[in-house]
This record gives sequence, C-alpha cells and structure tokens, in this order.
Amino acid sequence: MGQAPFLPAGLEIGQALFGDSMNRNVRLIVAYDGTEFAGWQRQADGRTVQALVEDTLAPIEKRPVTVIGAGRTDAGVHAAAQVANTELHTGIPVDELHRALNATLPEDVRVLAVDDMPPAFSARHDAKSKTYHYAIWNGVAAPPMFRRYVWHVPQPLDVTAMNAAAATFVGERDFAAFQATGSDVKTTVRRILASSVRWIDVTPLCTAARGDRFLRYEITGTGFLRHMVRNIVGTLTEIGLGRRSAADVQAILASRNRGQAGRTAPPQGLTLWHVEY
Amino acid sequence: MGQAPFLPAGLEIGQALFGDSMNRNVRLIVAYDGTEFAGWQRQADGRTVQALVEDTLAPIEKRPVTVIGAGRTDAGVHAAAQVANTELHTGIPVDELHRALNATLPEDVRVLAVDDMPPAFSARHDAKSKTYHYAIWNGVAAPPMFRRYVWHVPQPLDVTAMNAAAATFVGERDFAAFQATGSDVKTTVRRILASSVRWIDVTPLCTAARGDRFLRYEITGTGFLRHMVRNIVGTLTEIGLGRRSAADVQAILASRNRGQAGRTAPPQGLTLWHVEY
Repeated sequence: MGQAPFLPAGLEIGQALFGDSMNRNVRLIVAYDGTEFAGWQRQADGRTVQALVEDTLAPIEKRPVTVIGAGRTDAGVHAAAQVANTELHTGIPVDELHRALNATLPEDVRVLAVDDMPPAFSARHDAKSKTYHYAIWNGVAAPPMFRRYVWHVPQPLDVTAMNAAAATFVGERDFAAFQATGSDVKTTVRRILASSVRWIDVTPLCTAARGDRFLRYEITGTGFLRHMVRNIVGTLTEIGLGRRSAADVQAILASRNRGQAGRTAPPQGLTLWHVEY
Repeated sequence: MGQAPFLPAGLEIGQALFGDSMNRNVRLIVAYDGTEFAGWQRQADGRTVQALVEDTLAPIEKRPVTVIGAGRTDAGVHAAAQVANTELHTGIPVDELHRALNATLPEDVRVLAVDDMPPAFSARHDAKSKTYHYAIWNGVAAPPMFRRYVWHVPQPLDVTAMNAAAATFVGERDFAAFQATGSDVKTTVRRILASSVRWIDVTPLCTAARGDRFLRYEITGTGFLRHMVRNIVGTLTEIGLGRRSAADVQAILASRNRGQAGRTAPPQGLTLWHVEY
C-alpha cells in the first residue's frame, strides 16, 4: 500500500513532484482498541480517535487538520481497519508520515497504512459497504486476552437458530425496529449484503475452558443505523438462548418498533472490520 | 474437566461423599493477563495472581488457603493455563466453586477448570514439562488488540536462521549463559524437548499492516532457569536481525557466561502456555 494506485510505481509524489505547496489527499487505515475512547468522532469532551489523529497530524502539517472517517464508531467500539482521508500540504513522504504517526499516537491507536490518493477520493462517500464483526465469548470464562473484545454470554447458544435469523436481514429491509431510540434519519431502509454467525478457532492464541467457544456475527451492508448492529446482536442472542424464535425477526422488522427487538448488545464486542470501495 | 479421573462418573465428591470435614485436593487451571501483576507468586507488596486466588478462596474455605502453582511467572508474564492445586475442606461442588471464583476474581484472571484430584497430586512436583510461548509482532504496527501480548520488533526477521538456532537448544544443555545474573541454583543443566519458531495466522482476529506478521517462539522443557526463555528469545532475535549467526549458539552455551547471550526480551511477549503431566 506504499503507492497510490494512479501513480507510476516508484514516483515519490510527496516531495519530488509537488514540493511543499501541493494539495494532497492522504488515506489512512487506522486500527484502534475502543475501550478507552468516547468513539471515533471528535467531541467537545471525551477522548476520541479522530481528535487524536488530527492533533497528531497538525504539528506535521503546521496547521489544523481535519480527518474524515468512513464510519463513526460509538464509545467502546473497536476498529480493525477504519479508513479515513485528509487534505495535507506537507511534502513528507508517506512512509515517513506513517512512522511519525505511530511514533506519536498511543498504542491503542495504530496506523496500518498511509497512501496518497486521487483528489476525488473520499473515505466516507466512496465507501460501497462496511463490514462489522460482533464477538461473543460463549462459555464459562472469557480468556483474559479477549476480555476487552467480546461480550461474555455464559448460557449455551443455538447457532443454527441464530444463523437462520441472521439470514432474514439480508436484502433491502426497513430497520426502524433496530435503530437507537430517538434517532432522526430520512429513511430507515438499509441494504444488507451478508449476515451470518460463525465459530472462530482461537486455540492458536489462548486456552479455552472446556466447551467454551468464540462466536462471531459478521454483517456487511451499504449503510447502518445507529446501534443497528448491536440491536441485531441483542436480538440474535435472545434467539440463540431460545427466548425467541428465528421466525420472529420478520415480525420485528415489520413492526418498525424498537420495543419489539432485543436489548442492545454491549459495545465492546463490536468491531468495524472492513470498508469496501 | 468436571470430574476427577479417579472417580466414577456422576459422583459428587464435594458434598455427597464426605460432607464438610473432608480433605480435598483441588486442581485449578488459571489463565491470566500478566500486564498488571507483579507475577504469580505472593509477595509482601505487589498485586500477584497467587495472592488473589488464595484471598478469593479463603472466605469460601473460612480459613487461610495456600495455592501452589506449577510454575512461577515473572511480573508482566501471562498464563494461558497455569496449573495449581490447593487443599480444601469445604464441601462446595467443583462447578459451584468454579462459578464463585470467576464471579469474585477480576477479569484479568479467569479460572478455566476446577477438579477434585487424588490426594497425592501436586501441580508443581508432578509436572513433567512446561511449554512457554513468546510472541513477537514483526512489522510496522502491532494491532491494538495484541499490544499487551507481543514484543514489537519492526525490522524484518530471518525466521530460517532463528529456527536453526532454536533447534540447538533441544536436548540436555547447560543454560548458565541464559539465566538471570545473580541466580543461585544447584545446576544450570536443563532438558529441552522442543524449541522452534513459527508464524501464527491472526487474520481471523485482526487486520495487519502490509507485510506485518505474528511470530511465535515455542519451547517445551522439563525445567527452566530464571529469565531463561526471555534470554533465549533476546538471542534468537539478534540472530533473526543478522547481528549474530545461528552457529553462535553453541559457543554461547559453552561459555556459560550471561554476557555472551543476547539481551533479555521484555516480559509481555511471554506466556506460560501449558503444563504437561
């Protein structure tokens, strides 16, 4: 990812071509542990990833910088690969900028890649879809190394029922019943491209108590409402526990009533996994 | 692991058989994140895992409890499955004890299993060998979710050379050159059963920067000297960086001189992975 795709290989756009007065459109791929963040988006109060990245870029750019992310993440939600872009005028080469960012940012934020992009590229508007993962530790004891990244559900989950329910969300659906109460959006219809639950083998990385398993809900869609994934997971979990049936999802969707869906799953299980362009 | 192997299945040793006055020998399998611990072993000052587990058992047992671990781990070192045993007189069934421990212990310590064992079982003395893993993040940016569990080495590592060197440790060797300075032990000879380096695929759990990889040194031995694994890893890493050759290991071992081996790798990459009985 060292070179932007529209440039001939080996060309150093940063310095050689434009000097210090150019307009650059720089893409950042950013991973973060959301545990100690009030979310991605800059706020008046609260530690946010956007503010940290902007404030780290500002002294390099020697003026205030705005960084636009592909998707906002709520407090406590993680990102494996948030995509963002920013206009810069500094001539610093991308590899140096990459090193400088990671040298300055705290360890719970890491820049995975820095690239010069065509002027028209927008991390936010060009995103075709986004994929979120929601991790559940299903069993008696969540291994310490995963404790910040999973929702611990001790009771056995019926994954077949959860998967049947998950499939119901695929397609263009009205998710009014799954959005945070009090949201104000033009339309609550969203297009979901994939929605399923699977077991992840974590035995290479930790030891699980007998019978314990790492379960993950994976959803890809062109857009999401506020708390939508966490409300879906709360509902799927109630289905997995046998408190509702997979067939209920159609009725919940049709109700367009937040009160019909399940509780909101906690933020720490959720990760913005990938943004597709 | 709900039943001790010497008992007929279904027998509730805890309550039905002996009541409250029996002597029980209870085995605990314990995972912990060592980041915020001064190690396993109880100390006058400092948060330790042994003290936490003992202090959690004491109110259940209604008297002070001693828990003996298979191996001590230093400050900052993790355990995927430390094995320990303790004498108890309480009649609480193992499953209840398991739940009570995890309900009381902080989330960076989890009890993975609780079992009644024969009176003669000793987690420490019956251990035939132990396996340690040492994780290195090799590349530009350690993903936030692994930052507490890896040593970040940015420069490329020659894993073939590291593996050639690692193989040198297998067998009965004098590890005087690899023990912490100032150690006082009867013999510095230890028997190593396996010693190798491998890549672990972490793509199911996080996104890596391009070219970044998760490397792990895995060593099994009947016994270890203080800092031995971390000193081996420090030496292997210098070999991987090309600063020493794999062939140097024989000379370092023969020297019996700590000054000849590499630096001590930091504690956070090390995990007591498994104890073999």
